[in-house]
Amino acid sequence: MNIAVAQSGGPTCAINASLGGVFRAGKRSEDIDRIYGALNGIEGIIGDQLVDLSGKLTDDNNYELLLRTPSAVLGSCRMKLPDYHKESAVYEHITDIFRKNGIGMFFYIGGNDSMDTVAKLSAYYRDNNINDIRVIGIPKTIDNDLCVTDHCPGFGSAAKYVAATVQEITRDSNVYSIPSVTIIECMGRHAGWLTAASSCIRANGESAPHLIYLPERAFSADRFIVDVKRQMQRHRAVIVAVSEGIKTPDGRFAAESYQSAKKDAFGHTYLSGIGKFLENLVSDEIGCKVRSIELNVMQRCSSHIASLTDIQESERIGEAAVEAGLSGKTGCTMVFRRDSNAPYTCSIESTDALNTANSEKFFPAEWINDDGNDIMPAATEYLLPLIQGEIAPVMKNGIPMHLTIE
Amino acid sequence: MNIAVAQSGGPTCAINASLGGVFRAGKRSEDIDRIYGALNGIEGIIGDQLVDLSGKLTDDNNYELLLRTPSAVLGSCRMKLPDYHKESAVYEHITDIFRKNGIGMFFYIGGNDSMDTVAKLSAYYRDNNINDIRVIGIPKTIDNDLCVTDHCPGFGSAAKYVAATVQEITRDSNVYSIPSVTIIECMGRHAGWLTAASSCIRANGESAPHLIYLPERAFSADRFIVDVKRQMQRHRAVIVAVSEGIKTPDGRFAAESYQSAKKDAFGHTYLSGIGKFLENLVSDEIGCKVRSIELNVMQRCSSHIASLTDIQESERIGEAAVEAGLSGKTGCTMVFRRDSNAPYTCSIESTDALNTANSEKFFPAEWINDDGNDIMPAATEYLLPLIQGEIAPVMKNGIPMHLTIE
Repeated sequence: MNIAVAQSGGPTCAINASLGGVFRAGKRSEDIDRIYGALNGIEGIIGDQLVDLSGKLTDDNNYELLLRTPSAVLGSCRMKLPDYHKESAVYEHITDIFRKNGIGMFFYIGGNDSMDTVAKLSAYYRDNNINDIRVIGIPKTIDNDLCVTDHCPGFGSAAKYVAATVQEITRDSNVYSIPSVTIIECMGRHAGWLTAASSCIRANGESAPHLIYLPERAFSADRFIVDVKRQMQRHRAVIVAVSEGIKTPDGRFAAESYQSAKKDAFGHTYLSGIGKFLENLVSDEIGCKVRSIELNVMQRCSSHIASLTDIQESERIGEAAVEAGLSGKTGCTMVFRRDSNAPYTCSIESTDALNTANSEKFFPAEWINDDGNDIMPAATEYLLPLIQGEIAPVMKNGIPMHLTIE
Repeated sequence: MNIAVAQSGGPTCAINASLGGVFRAGKRSEDIDRIYGALNGIEGIIGDQLVDLSGKLTDDNNYELLLRTPSAVLGSCRMKLPDYHKESAVYEHITDIFRKNGIGMFFYIGGNDSMDTVAKLSAYYRDNNINDIRVIGIPKTIDNDLCVTDHCPGFGSAAKYVAATVQEITRDSNVYSIPSVTIIECMGRHAGWLTAASSCIRANGESAPHLIYLPERAFSADRFIVDVKRQMQRHRAVIVAVSEGIKTPDGRFAAESYQSAKKDAFGHTYLSGIGKFLENLVSDEIGCKVRSIELNVMQRCSSHIASLTDIQESERIGEAAVEAGLSGKTGCTMVFRRDSNAPYTCSIESTDALNTANSEKFFPAEWINDDGNDIMPAATEYLLPLIQGEIAPVMKNGIPMHLTIE
């Protein structure tokens, strides 16, 4: 039997480690012959763009580079399959491609949209009595917003980047003797997990960040200014961590609510990010030194400071997916179950793919303080194990080396 | 004799290594008793806020943390001394503080404003026949725009961050199969050195960045769109590196020239950075997928990926300053002289502080291509040696540890 693996959705630092895990477990199994990588997710299956991974991952050096390469070496896509009750042609086509290439198991690494693909494709096979093709999902997302799983592969590395960078920015912010406010905008349109990771630096004795705002709690610009003024009485350099997706009480993104009337000289509606908006607000309302910093895609691609825990777990969950497939499972998503916080232990299970498709896991209300401007220590305890350990990049000419496949 | 050292101007990853070098050389010398650190630059001298560094740098562990701590552990300031011919009181006061604390040498680590302080203070001593207090400047700036010196302490680490991050963003940008443009905004209001460092990834076989714009060459938005369209014919994911300070032919910042008429809903003039402006421009004019990324203060504070070459040289130039002072020098700035590119060798000399005060060294015209949208290979050859080597951070709880002094 041959197998195929593909990557989908937004890139992370760990999605290649899960690919590596699938490859390694595939090589180990006597039941598996060729291991194909499909280019650009399910599009690569539909287009029959398959790469024999044995020709690309030829030695340990390549494999080690793969673990250290951000983004998705096979490329990604954002494509959802139609309802197969209404439109079955693409399902038949995918099945033809699988048959033509002798593929008996398909592993899809991605977020909740990709788990939707896993759920639909496996349900199509179930309803049509096709029993010789198994479909298994491997989660990934820096947003950590997949349901069922304790945490998502890729999140730990992004969280480590956020924590390390907020630590360094805190150092930078304390250099001058005049009062200042620094606003750090983290990714997360609906879930505040990554922004919450900024709290990890408190484990090393920092008082920062002094304010943390997540999308899970309604945001008020007036209350924000009151919060900042109060923190300025306590700290010379106030550090604020804020999710890009914080929302006003009406559920709209704050960046849009507050700026909706703003047009530029050409009449275009132009929205700055929430960080820049809050910077301007502090400047207008308080008048102190203020700056905003958007951590941007560096959160998802800074492999040079990836979490070893995350990379190793991401690899393991890829291996576990192959093992689950070999044991006969299909239509499931592999998930982490945390057994203990200290010492941190975690095992891998599977759940029906439907449980992880199309829904989001939000930051728990009980982990946000009453004022809605900070998180509780229990959240930091949950986060800390995920950012432990480093995986040194392979450097060439002073720059991290990556693996490319094409 | 006691000595004093202070840090000034914008933070870097290497300004603490130079402090370490002063401390180490001071401890080695039998002629030097106490080594004082002044808090917040020259303000700490004026305010008599001196810290005995032996009480802070008590062991090798502290010292190693110092080398790995971004920003300035003693704090910084932005203060220029007045002309002493007109206003000598502050000079007399500084001298009183030096005398009261038995300080015979003062080392000032900073940029061209700080070198102005070194030049003025030493000239005041010369003109007033005060021969027992020496004043020596130690350069630092991520902008690499100090005159005389081949390069500036702190630049190599910022350049390494830029190169490594542009490498990782390039990987991230190539994940989708649709055409895209990624605009990376680097620091540099007047000098393009940091932006040029993005070219280092070509040494590892990357074609990116496909376009590079520096403040030294007049910028045209129309020509930019033509450039981008041309690159889009060659590359699916076009990567653009641009200095924050690129200017229109009239010498104004492009971000201001092009947005001067733009007001928000409250009537405030609001300027986005050049990256965001160019992102909106590409979106309007080309209509493809486009994003902008501002590397922001991470360029100057990401010690976790500092250049070992930079940290070691920064430490050495601090030591060399003490040695120069002990040999009788004053009124000078320590500078690097590059002896060879390959193998890279570099020695340390001194120059009259006036040569480094208040002036800027621009990116050479001959290192910019005719079209003004890229740099020449000779520039990359100059840059590469400065980003070599790594200095692993000391991690605690998965986050880099820093030294704080207060």
